[in-house]
Amino acid sequence: MPKFVYDFTEGNKDLRDLLGGKGANLAEMTNLGLPVPPGFTITTEACRTYLADRTVPAEEIATHLAKLEATMGKRLGDAEDPLLVSVRSGARFSMPGMMETVLNIGLNDDSVLGLAAQSGNERFAWDSYRRLIQMFGKTVLGIDGERFEEALEELKAGRQDLDLDAADFRRLVDVYKEIVKQERDREFPGDPREQMELAIRAVFDSWHAPRAVLYRRQERIPDDLGTAVNVVAMVFGNLGMDSGTGVAFTRDPATGQRGVYGDYLQNAQGEDVVAGIRNTIPLQELERIDPTSHHELLDIMARLEGHYRDLCDIEFTIERGKLWMLQTRVGKRTAAAAFRIAVQLVDEGLIGIDEAVLRCTGQQLAQLMFPRFTEGAANTLLTTGMNASPGAAVGQAVFSSERAVELAARGEAVILVRRETNPDDLAGMIAARGVLTSRGGKTSHAAVVARGMGKTCVCGAEELEVDTKGRRFTVNGTVVEEGDVISIDGTSGAVYLGEVPVVPSPVVEYFEGEEPAGELVAAVHRIMTHADESRRLAVRANADNPEDAARARRFGAQGIGLCRTEHMFLGDRRQLVEDLILAENPRERQSALDALEPLQKADFAGIFAAMTGLPVTIRLIDPPLHEFLPDLVDLSVKVATGAGTEKDERLLAAVKRLHEQNPMLGLRGVRLGLVIPGLFAMQVRAIAQAAREAGKARAEIMIPLVGAVQELESVRDEALKILDEVGVHALIGTMIEVPRAALTAGQIAEAAQFFSFGTNDLTQMTWGFSRDDVEASFFGKYLDLGIFGVSPFETLDRDGVGRLMRIAVAEGRATRPDLKLGICGEHGGDPDSVRLCHEIGLDYVSCSPFRVPVARLEAGRAALAGAESDTR
Amino acid sequence: MPKFVYDFTEGNKDLRDLLGGKGANLAEMTNLGLPVPPGFTITTEACRTYLADRTVPAEEIATHLAKLEATMGKRLGDAEDPLLVSVRSGARFSMPGMMETVLNIGLNDDSVLGLAAQSGNERFAWDSYRRLIQMFGKTVLGIDGERFEEALEELKAGRQDLDLDAADFRRLVDVYKEIVKQERDREFPGDPREQMELAIRAVFDSWHAPRAVLYRRQERIPDDLGTAVNVVAMVFGNLGMDSGTGVAFTRDPATGQRGVYGDYLQNAQGEDVVAGIRNTIPLQELERIDPTSHHELLDIMARLEGHYRDLCDIEFTIERGKLWMLQTRVGKRTAAAAFRIAVQLVDEGLIGIDEAVLRCTGQQLAQLMFPRFTEGAANTLLTTGMNASPGAAVGQAVFSSERAVELAARGEAVILVRRETNPDDLAGMIAARGVLTSRGGKTSHAAVVARGMGKTCVCGAEELEVDTKGRRFTVNGTVVEEGDVISIDGTSGAVYLGEVPVVPSPVVEYFEGEEPAGELVAAVHRIMTHADESRRLAVRANADNPEDAARARRFGAQGIGLCRTEHMFLGDRRQLVEDLILAENPRERQSALDALEPLQKADFAGIFAAMTGLPVTIRLIDPPLHEFLPDLVDLSVKVATGAGTEKDERLLAAVKRLHEQNPMLGLRGVRLGLVIPGLFAMQVRAIAQAAREAGKARAEIMIPLVGAVQELESVRDEALKILDEVGVHALIGTMIEVPRAALTAGQIAEAAQFFSFGTNDLTQMTWGFSRDDVEASFFGKYLDLGIFGVSPFETLDRDGVGRLMRIAVAEGRATRPDLKLGICGEHGGDPDSVRLCHEIGLDYVSCSPFRVPVARLEAGRAALAGAESDTR
Repeated sequence: MPKFVYDFTEGNKDLRDLLGGKGANLAEMTNLGLPVPPGFTITTEACRTYLADRTVPAEEIATHLAKLEATMGKRLGDAEDPLLVSVRSGARFSMPGMMETVLNIGLNDDSVLGLAAQSGNERFAWDSYRRLIQMFGKTVLGIDGERFEEALEELKAGRQDLDLDAADFRRLVDVYKEIVKQERDREFPGDPREQMELAIRAVFDSWHAPRAVLYRRQERIPDDLGTAVNVVAMVFGNLGMDSGTGVAFTRDPATGQRGVYGDYLQNAQGEDVVAGIRNTIPLQELERIDPTSHHELLDIMARLEGHYRDLCDIEFTIERGKLWMLQTRVGKRTAAAAFRIAVQLVDEGLIGIDEAVLRCTGQQLAQLMFPRFTEGAANTLLTTGMNASPGAAVGQAVFSSERAVELAARGEAVILVRRETNPDDLAGMIAARGVLTSRGGKTSHAAVVARGMGKTCVCGAEELEVDTKGRRFTVNGTVVEEGDVISIDGTSGAVYLGEVPVVPSPVVEYFEGEEPAGELVAAVHRIMTHADESRRLAVRANADNPEDAARARRFGAQGIGLCRTEHMFLGDRRQLVEDLILAENPRERQSALDALEPLQKADFAGIFAAMTGLPVTIRLIDPPLHEFLPDLVDLSVKVATGAGTEKDERLLAAVKRLHEQNPMLGLRGVRLGLVIPGLFAMQVRAIAQAAREAGKARAEIMIPLVGAVQELESVRDEALKILDEVGVHALIGTMIEVPRAALTAGQIAEAAQFFSFGTNDLTQMTWGFSRDDVEASFFGKYLDLGIFGVSPFETLDRDGVGRLMRIAVAEGRATRPDLKLGICGEHGGDPDSVRLCHEIGLDYVSCSPFRVPVARLEAGRAALAGAESDTR
Repeated sequence: MPKFVYDFTEGNKDLRDLLGGKGANLAEMTNLGLPVPPGFTITTEACRTYLADRTVPAEEIATHLAKLEATMGKRLGDAEDPLLVSVRSGARFSMPGMMETVLNIGLNDDSVLGLAAQSGNERFAWDSYRRLIQMFGKTVLGIDGERFEEALEELKAGRQDLDLDAADFRRLVDVYKEIVKQERDREFPGDPREQMELAIRAVFDSWHAPRAVLYRRQERIPDDLGTAVNVVAMVFGNLGMDSGTGVAFTRDPATGQRGVYGDYLQNAQGEDVVAGIRNTIPLQELERIDPTSHHELLDIMARLEGHYRDLCDIEFTIERGKLWMLQTRVGKRTAAAAFRIAVQLVDEGLIGIDEAVLRCTGQQLAQLMFPRFTEGAANTLLTTGMNASPGAAVGQAVFSSERAVELAARGEAVILVRRETNPDDLAGMIAARGVLTSRGGKTSHAAVVARGMGKTCVCGAEELEVDTKGRRFTVNGTVVEEGDVISIDGTSGAVYLGEVPVVPSPVVEYFEGEEPAGELVAAVHRIMTHADESRRLAVRANADNPEDAARARRFGAQGIGLCRTEHMFLGDRRQLVEDLILAENPRERQSALDALEPLQKADFAGIFAAMTGLPVTIRLIDPPLHEFLPDLVDLSVKVATGAGTEKDERLLAAVKRLHEQNPMLGLRGVRLGLVIPGLFAMQVRAIAQAAREAGKARAEIMIPLVGAVQELESVRDEALKILDEVGVHALIGTMIEVPRAALTAGQIAEAAQFFSFGTNDLTQMTWGFSRDDVEASFFGKYLDLGIFGVSPFETLDRDGVGRLMRIAVAEGRATRPDLKLGICGEHGGDPDSVRLCHEIGLDYVSCSPFRVPVARLEAGRAALAGAESDTR
């Protein structure tokens, strides 16, 4: 039989799988000789056994409890001098929805008197007892916590908690017991061992609590890990003003500034800090109140940081001047703090630069690149909602999609304010600088769609009363009318009245070429430099014009991975495209193509100039032709109502002819090239001529939407002939964006010199949903249900799309060992996806220019993480 | 060095890969002791070597030629008594576009005189010489054959070929030589060995002729097989009226009737039969002309059939009363002949019943199931076009899609007649019984779309002059006006005036339950009986109503593999569905669902009754909801022009809200079930209650469009609760129709008791094209270009879709060994696809009721073929 219970002296921090995070760190601190209250951990394995057959390892627990009693010289629930314990859950990953803690186990009508006598503090003893019943009732027996809160409020009748005396709490104990009897038709259990066992079972059971299950599904945490339980001897921060409890960080987790940082609350137990019943005091003030404990605490924190080699956060309690450590873990931090602390730790010799890079994520870097509101601006903070999509946006409040579109068309900046959004608001969301809603969470329509668009969004700002008809909202007495300017901070969720000045990110300015200045930018510089030195993946950018190409190059792009040519067919060239589509014979078609060719050539010349010496991958035209024509519904209505011209009628006929039920799955990409004679040839000739004239151009011609090698062969043969005629060399390759291309990559590689994974389309077709249509209609629901942890359009779906990519990489390279492999879908700039691209062995990732630094960092981290796991 | 040249005495029929079909069979006949002119075969391996380095195995050829000369006692091109040879290509597969044959090699200005002297027939000698120059000029030198034909016609000046004399042909030789000089700026080569080598090289080179390359691409024949070349001593059918040439079959390949069958042409060479310069006579008449040869021929044919154990076709020549066999192979035959002959051979003890089943294809059975026109009806045959899509259709000729729709709506049968069709004609094609066009081949829009629909089509009937405006067509002087009745035969390509009576297929009547009568039906019965005994795959049907279910059962279906529920939401229930979609709150939604539930229950009750004791797989609702609402364009126009009611305006809002750019990739299938509360629950409850009341019902509930196991889990949990409440057992499984489902089948099988491959959607998403949109717009072009050999919507694409299926089968079964696996896409009734389903280990295929017999046969053949290859 496995060992199901570990004393704190038996564990260590590497046993997180077995002991949970909390138990492993308590054991680690115990072994470091730090003042941790004695206790033991019941393992996750015991939990798994319990969940299978409802048994708990009662004997082992009894043995360890006996040892604990011996250590403490007290017996659990003893009537004279009771040992009290807390029962706390502690899984491998912290998980909302699971039972957290029951304190003061061991108290009953007898032992409360013993505690009063021993502590010499009757008020404390009865307060502890009512806390036990309250917590036990709520978390173990599942009684609505409001029942207890209401009873407490009634008793206080407006007094502060410190004003209550022992008699008050004794009365409250009776009321609480009565609540238990009413709600659960049973007595509160007076037997301390029964209390402990029920609490342990409750922790185990909470593994299957709906919120915990949902959270695991969303976070892809396996369902069969189980949670550990920690049973710890109680120490008391609420024994008087020489006692207290606090939380602390070894450095400032908000800014990354050196020096400890924390809060302390005198005469209180841990949950009081969280509940915010009184204001905490800064940790520094503890030096004045209890210099010995303060000094010891600083000492311990320095040791912990040295030991964990990272920012730690801790929970501690002082019981009558004696310091106890209740918890520690590596602390969460902001993006800026992450970079600063990582570099500080390098300078302090605690970690190497490799490790520092591994500790700064691309996600954090991206956060540092958003523009921010000036700190200390004098604007009124109207309210705070959920930070649904980061960024800073300023504009006039508008209350309908139509109005947003109308004002935006005039060049005005607007913020779309709605109770909640729905698919009808899509046009308005596109037109607005930012979106603000009063309802809905982070998976609401507004939040999902805004994140998809990269648009600033604050949602669920519940204090807002939105009056759509009256075109105004009211918040805490302030009325904001349509046209009034507001500012929303999608990173913090803050909503301000008036225009808050926006400052560009200093990190972006650094990427744009400014010298590194300030500790943060200097830290970013060092991290980026080492990431670049370490990475194996090249980073390219997706850019369709010389300006974007030049910016991408400044941001560190090593080429263009995707230059789309369809955008070049819009604007004043739309007329030529219409001519091409309306052509009634080969002559008319050719003359439209001839007119387009010099324009295309000029497009490419500009990009080649911006990227001299670097590879530029140009994708031949991809979307269905009708995207260049007017909308079918609009045109039908125009013609039907007699408002159309003769040309409109001809256009309508063409639009109808080209109309497709599912244009995403229609005549586009290579299919267009094969069906419309001369179209691809025109583009290839324009590329070839521009490349020849540019001198150091490195053109790569990319064929979209190939599903069978025969398609590619046809186009390649034609393209090679043209390149040969012009006398220019260029690589010819293909997108891998329909599942069949990945599944037959071994064949396709016979005709392709490179593959570029078009993961937007590949995701659409692998899952069978189109981004435009479904993000709005059901992604929110899917995120809520935990079907996705994250939208597969944001982060590559490893099991589906990722698997196709692996197949294509392996089989493509088997056919052609020097096959060049890249990705040009939007995933190319997503941190998790960059890691996957490194793992599966791509040569480069390509992403929007702004995302290039994120990709560089993540590529470096992926290489370093890989190197780390290689040497293990 | 490999052996590159084989004498006919050295080969045999199993060496087809090396010697080609023709060479292998010539060797086989030689070894049987049949009178084959001596000769040798240059191997396909020699061809591959030649294509790599342009060398021919000259020495080996010379050795074999010397041996041939010794055997014949003549020398090639000898001036006194020349040996002449033919050079004929012969690949593993016969292939249009490749060089076929050059006869009479060895003739020049000297040897022609020797031939004349030896044969005593000057006319014959000069005719042979001019034939050599003509064939050599055309096929070896690539000169347009018209040049020679014109010269011949000019010389004939209206006379028959038998009227020409030696002087005429001698003059023609001069003219032909002059043509060669003009066209190729070289003399016709007089050296016999040069003639032979050039001819051999030309055969090898023709492997890369564009038509041959295209054909191989279309037929998926590997490009690197190469062709063999046969060099054969010439024998002459044109030495006088005691000579001749013919083709024959050992049984009637058209009907399968016992007894030989063939054509004979006196005083002619083989190519004259093909060119049809004179009428052939039936083989029987040879008995009168040359009873010895006739008797010997019948004898040989009997031996060949016994040896090949199948219908053989042969080419033969009689030279002055001496019979020579020039070729034999297993002969092609019609569908009816295939069944009859297979069973005859069983009865004759030549083959076993397993072999007989393997020789009758599902494709042939399907042909036998089409209705046919009564034979011998007195209708005028107007013309014959291409047999683009089989069947027999009768109806009024109409000349526009609109008119077709209009008349069909009134219940009239129409045939849509167009010059060619385009996507605008789609509605008309759906409305019509058949389609007739005057232009375009078998890959034209009309042909591709009609085959996709299973609609009768004759295309490219070039004699038709279609006058769309005048609503009439003219053919050979007959004018057919709109409304006149015509009949088209998609199996033969014939077009008749008036109504030809259609007779149902006797094979269908047999499947419907009639006793087998007649040799054909008896043969079908025996083949089907043994196929059923042999197959491992079960066959189910796709049926949505009790009538189809009952018919499917009569046709041998062992259950329903797909019962679609969305069709049940149309008709007079559309109103309820509109209520469901327009519901503004949960109460309204629930009341629409409550109204639908008893109707659904009745639907299922009927199907369960028809299929008592057999499994019925019911798919929960799949298509996007807006399919149940009016068309967006129509409704927009109606409202914009003021013709809409208040309800139309509400409807328009709903249609706009539900509008999707790509509905195929939108809110449908399981997504609908998860987003609309109560919809799936209503359906499951209706199924459960109908099943409980039906008694012996075996319901299987199928969830469409699952891409992730989490989706299925959610729906399954809800369904299991309802089944439990109703107290009914049913399997719960899923379609595998998005690529991700196949790629994560190992996970999905955790929640699924069965998989059914929805290969229509799976094909769409794997290739990234939607059937509705692309068949019309580019499939014809793709077939022409050889990108497909056959539409992937007709026959499963092995490399793409098939690979996903293999993955899903292997990984699904690894998770759940008793996972039930089937297919319910339209491929379930396609012969090649059934074979693939057998190979990858499915448990059943499901197809339309009419296709059930085809699937049964192919399942049997697949099992027998598998068994055969297992014992090899």
